[in-house]
Amino acid sequence: MRITDKGFASDNWSGVCPEIMEALNEVNTGHVFAYGEGDEEVSKVAVNKFKEHFGDDIAVFFVYNGTAANVLGTGHLINPYQAIIAAHTAHMNEDECGAPEKFTGSKILEIHTKNGKINTEQIKPFLGNIGFQHHSQPKLISISQVTELGTIYTTSEIKALSEFAHDNNMYLHMDGARISNAVAALNTDFRSITTDAGVDVLSFGGTKNGMMFGEAVVFFNKDLAVDFEYARKQGMQLHSKMRFIAAQFTRYLSNDLWRSNADIANKMAKALALEISKIPEMQVSQDVDANGVFVLMPEYIIPLLQKDYFFHIWNENPTVDSEVPMKEVRLMCSWDTTRDDIAGFIDLVGELLG
Amino acid sequence: MRITDKGFASDNWSGVCPEIMEALNEVNTGHVFAYGEGDEEVSKVAVNKFKEHFGDDIAVFFVYNGTAANVLGTGHLINPYQAIIAAHTAHMNEDECGAPEKFTGSKILEIHTKNGKINTEQIKPFLGNIGFQHHSQPKLISISQVTELGTIYTTSEIKALSEFAHDNNMYLHMDGARISNAVAALNTDFRSITTDAGVDVLSFGGTKNGMMFGEAVVFFNKDLAVDFEYARKQGMQLHSKMRFIAAQFTRYLSNDLWRSNADIANKMAKALALEISKIPEMQVSQDVDANGVFVLMPEYIIPLLQKDYFFHIWNENPTVDSEVPMKEVRLMCSWDTTRDDIAGFIDLVGELLG
Amino acid sequence: MRITDKGFASDNWSGVCPEIMEALNEVNTGHVFAYGEGDEEVSKVAVNKFKEHFGDDIAVFFVYNGTAANVLGTGHLINPYQAIIAAHTAHMNEDECGAPEKFTGSKILEIHTKNGKINTEQIKPFLGNIGFQHHSQPKLISISQVTELGTIYTTSEIKALSEFAHDNNMYLHMDGARISNAVAALNTDFRSITTDAGVDVLSFGGTKNGMMFGEAVVFFNKDLAVDFEYARKQGMQLHSKMRFIAAQFTRYLSNDLWRSNADIANKMAKALALEISKIPEMQVSQDVDANGVFVLMPEYIIPLLQKDYFFHIWNENPTVDSEVPMKEVRLMCSWDTTRDDIAGFIDLVGELLG
Amino acid sequence: MRITDKGFASDNWSGVCPEIMEALNEVNTGHVFAYGEGDEEVSKVAVNKFKEHFGDDIAVFFVYNGTAANVLGTGHLINPYQAIIAAHTAHMNEDECGAPEKFTGSKILEIHTKNGKINTEQIKPFLGNIGFQHHSQPKLISISQVTELGTIYTTSEIKALSEFAHDNNMYLHMDGARISNAVAALNTDFRSITTDAGVDVLSFGGTKNGMMFGEAVVFFNKDLAVDFEYARKQGMQLHSKMRFIAAQFTRYLSNDLWRSNADIANKMAKALALEISKIPEMQVSQDVDANGVFVLMPEYIIPLLQKDYFFHIWNENPTVDSEVPMKEVRLMCSWDTTRDDIAGFIDLVGELLG
Repeated sequence: MRITDKGFASDNWSGVCPEIMEALNEVNTGHVFAYGEGDEEVSKVAVNKFKEHFGDDIAVFFVYNGTAANVLGTGHLINPYQAIIAAHTAHMNEDECGAPEKFTGSKILEIHTKNGKINTEQIKPFLGNIGFQHHSQPKLISISQVTELGTIYTTSEIKALSEFAHDNNMYLHMDGARISNAVAALNTDFRSITTDAGVDVLSFGGTKNGMMFGEAVVFFNKDLAVDFEYARKQGMQLHSKMRFIAAQFTRYLSNDLWRSNADIANKMAKALALEISKIPEMQVSQDVDANGVFVLMPEYIIPLLQKDYFFHIWNENPTVDSEVPMKEVRLMCSWDTTRDDIAGFIDLVGELLG
Repeated sequence: MRITDKGFASDNWSGVCPEIMEALNEVNTGHVFAYGEGDEEVSKVAVNKFKEHFGDDIAVFFVYNGTAANVLGTGHLINPYQAIIAAHTAHMNEDECGAPEKFTGSKILEIHTKNGKINTEQIKPFLGNIGFQHHSQPKLISISQVTELGTIYTTSEIKALSEFAHDNNMYLHMDGARISNAVAALNTDFRSITTDAGVDVLSFGGTKNGMMFGEAVVFFNKDLAVDFEYARKQGMQLHSKMRFIAAQFTRYLSNDLWRSNADIANKMAKALALEISKIPEMQVSQDVDANGVFVLMPEYIIPLLQKDYFFHIWNENPTVDSEVPMKEVRLMCSWDTTRDDIAGFIDLVGELLG
Repeated sequence: MRITDKGFASDNWSGVCPEIMEALNEVNTGHVFAYGEGDEEVSKVAVNKFKEHFGDDIAVFFVYNGTAANVLGTGHLINPYQAIIAAHTAHMNEDECGAPEKFTGSKILEIHTKNGKINTEQIKPFLGNIGFQHHSQPKLISISQVTELGTIYTTSEIKALSEFAHDNNMYLHMDGARISNAVAALNTDFRSITTDAGVDVLSFGGTKNGMMFGEAVVFFNKDLAVDFEYARKQGMQLHSKMRFIAAQFTRYLSNDLWRSNADIANKMAKALALEISKIPEMQVSQDVDANGVFVLMPEYIIPLLQKDYFFHIWNENPTVDSEVPMKEVRLMCSWDTTRDDIAGFIDLVGELLG
Repeated sequence: MRITDKGFASDNWSGVCPEIMEALNEVNTGHVFAYGEGDEEVSKVAVNKFKEHFGDDIAVFFVYNGTAANVLGTGHLINPYQAIIAAHTAHMNEDECGAPEKFTGSKILEIHTKNGKINTEQIKPFLGNIGFQHHSQPKLISISQVTELGTIYTTSEIKALSEFAHDNNMYLHMDGARISNAVAALNTDFRSITTDAGVDVLSFGGTKNGMMFGEAVVFFNKDLAVDFEYARKQGMQLHSKMRFIAAQFTRYLSNDLWRSNADIANKMAKALALEISKIPEMQVSQDVDANGVFVLMPEYIIPLLQKDYFFHIWNENPTVDSEVPMKEVRLMCSWDTTRDDIAGFIDLVGELLG
């Protein structure tokens, strides 16, 4: 069955890329300090790799996954009576089963968007709550880069948000579950859209781009990271055999592995979108900035396609002018997507549409 | 330097055993459903492996680590105004930086013990709180098997605790971070000290015995597990590439890998304790039931030994009748400890003591 | 200065009505069981008063204020991974500084409305989240009766919501901070819009209608209330000298005091709205169902009016077609509002508008 | 029945003293700003009263009860991964149904004592946890003044604790549910055992000494109080008709009402203890520093006494050398206890003991 082979469901349906698996095998020798403590060298090397990319004035902590990085990273900067401002579609808001509210105690103030990106004009109305004791106090803006709708913030858009945040005594958090895809697509480096763009804390993910597990919380001001080791432990996110997270990140951040993997995913998404744009019955519904392709397609074709290529329906009731019932689906490409995968999919679409 | 090679610091200083690493490499092929959802087969196979060992009426959920298994597993059975009763030395009480209190909101009522094991007589006084609205209501007893002091509950001791718990409308939780060592030492099977002994929920660990990451929460009554998938997600413990946890457990629970690894660790601990018992200046201070050896030794020798073999001081101020200042240390053996490691350590002790 | 006399800021700017103050003085004699425990009669009488109005199959618990009643009452029915559905303007969502999120750990899913009332069509889209582990699970619908916009749900609207809730395995909560105003306005009794309309849990408030402090959590099914005494204590809401809350409620629920106070407030609001509707420069912007009057008025007049009659601006940027800059204000009447207060206000408006 | 008249159950079984009830009646006139906001004068006057007693550099916030003052006051100074050190018998630890753990997320490290008082020697062992990420970090010491065992810390004992706390980067909290009794007994003023003794935050209670409801959180450094208004609101402790708490405190702190009420309670306790000390079959078991008398008495007499004078059993199984089964009971005196009450009780004891 094709489903257990390759589809477009999500970039986390893929496995571990060969280089990362090699790193895991190599680091598996002898005894080392647990928890990344003491003079454990593997973690130190990984932290230094992060510093190569993000600059020296950062503090880096490894956790297990993106939910934890988002929750613990933002929660460490704010108090429970302070609020997080985020897009309605943000993973933190929609896809973490209330983990931010449960663990941080904070409220999320949501902004409805068309493309997953928020801007300062949309945030301004929330400032009216500041100083009024009955209202949760806006204190942190969270953006996803890449967004959950496959779009990317430009560097100047990020800078505008960080300046606005800092001018209003707030922080800027970036959910970088797909940050490598964003940096590759923008043809820039990590630093330019984070350290140099005024981001305060970053959830740095690699699992969607070839890693097995592990995420990094990166603080761009060491003062903000004080005591984070305790928050991580209390947050159930301290791994004992830490070397196995650290070694992955070291390899991921070396020799542009992160970029080459992301480039593949991004390019395949562009290629897929190009093919779909040629099909009259379908419509690409979001900018294909990175590795996701959102497509309006006839409802009846979806289960037929899913027999061979699994993917998720994004919107059961999209607003679309069509005589045929349509749904919006999400097609994700990953580091291991091939031109053959795309050709096979497009061929099947052609067959089914007749 | 010996430190980065092998010592007796903790069983989680060891790496991943070859069989588990092989399983990880083997499962790394193609695309599969993320999060163990849908018809993802790797997780199903792993769950069935658990059922082979624990019986069919269980519910199994994979999380990242032992802290999470303890916190989420117990928290799912009780309300925040209900209390957990545990030994003072329990990992939940002492070594999780307040994670249970933070996430469950519950209070831990601690019992001081000599050997890490609690009994019903020690629990009875807490029953006086039941029904009095000012007091946190005792609702769950948590035991560690193996305990943090290297001792093991017998099957009948566990049964006595579970009967007492159930008679008083409470649950019994087992922190099984080292459950394989216990089962191997008792020369029995998993089922006899859990399912058949009345345990309600188990934290099943493998990382200290050869795995890379991942822990299982096992409920021995499916009704108790209702909705746990949401608690896990909200608890930041749902892994996307779930197959990499599942495949480890499948291998761990096959061909008695868990037992053979544990047997090595246990036997090495017995051997180490035997040698130490011959040294007049030292004293084994706890029963060596599994893979941990607690030793009273002269203070001055500790830093000298630690240059080559790292281990942790357990008690800076033990009560001991000695002219020389003494401390209590903990020496842990693991699946990769060898007779040469022990011989080297004992030789060094001999040299140092002259 | 008029401000310290009477204005239209809020019904909680008023004092305690004479009958309640009398009850407080009368109950202040001798010693009684603290915390409403044991054979404390004052609390028992109060609970029986509630049963007279709501029926026998209820459980009643006294807490300090409305925020606590909302948070503890709803939190007792759901788990942290379950969500509350409420109007965007709901007090729980907007005016409790994140108390529900902090204490229950649950997420609030908000519905934007024009008049503060929600209906089943608006709730349906959230049902799509049910069963998907990444999403907080909708489990409780909360409505405010009277709403924060001064409107009232009809009995049949409440029944429609409770049926929908129960059909979908959810609960219905009513924030009754102004329930007496609603019942008086509907010319009915408490039971018909709560017990008989399918409400599961009610926050019953009296402070805005003549009481000094205290709120009641009323469960309409005793099974739902099991253990609530512990949740209340842990929620920091158990009063020691309980008789002083209980005695207020007994008096409030006797001889239709609740209704006569509410009738005054409601009638004064109608009278105020009538007068305002005659002023061309102003516009009543919501239905005046109870004791609140929402008014669009010229911006420049507001500070002039507030010198003598304080009231709150509700919307700084209302959508309104006017050449003069307009704001929306809220004018609340209370049990002690008089026709003279209204006449004075309207006279001043007349003077200021020339 | 005597039970509903006066006994020795607790000082919160008493009613409201006449002066406080008068203040409540007097403040009940006209409209004032709700929530103590804006230019509400009643609250300002009350805060200034506190400054008269405690000095100008304090921040004062009114909440509903002592549990809330303890939980919110301490929780505002520490993070969830930090621990509170307190006596085992502390109200925070034993009598608040886990409220501190639930709301602050922090762990309480308990110290077992004989008389309810803790000292620096008992705290020192916990310092070993500092800097070790697996352990909750000691950050705040909480003492009760009067303690739950009726004893009082001397000024120098408090100073020693505050110096120790500050030397170790910790805070000192005082649970002052009965602080007036302590100050009266020490024949000093509030300032000398709080402001001048290095206390950082105080729960100031009056309900046990003649008030109806309300408690104050007093911070002795305004920087520590930043944002507390939001924590109070989120903690469900912001009263709308704030003047009714404020007016009580103003009266309580005027004309030494607090002291005269406390003096009565304290003197009655001394008198009661003196009489009991003359009874061979009974034994006063704690120092009678304030208004509580702990007594070992024959078990059989307790229910007989309780028919007329209710009081609580403190310890069902005291360690005592006696042929007759004994229990330890607590007899509390309050502002309205009279010599007749004591004489009646002692007479009854005499009758019953024959």
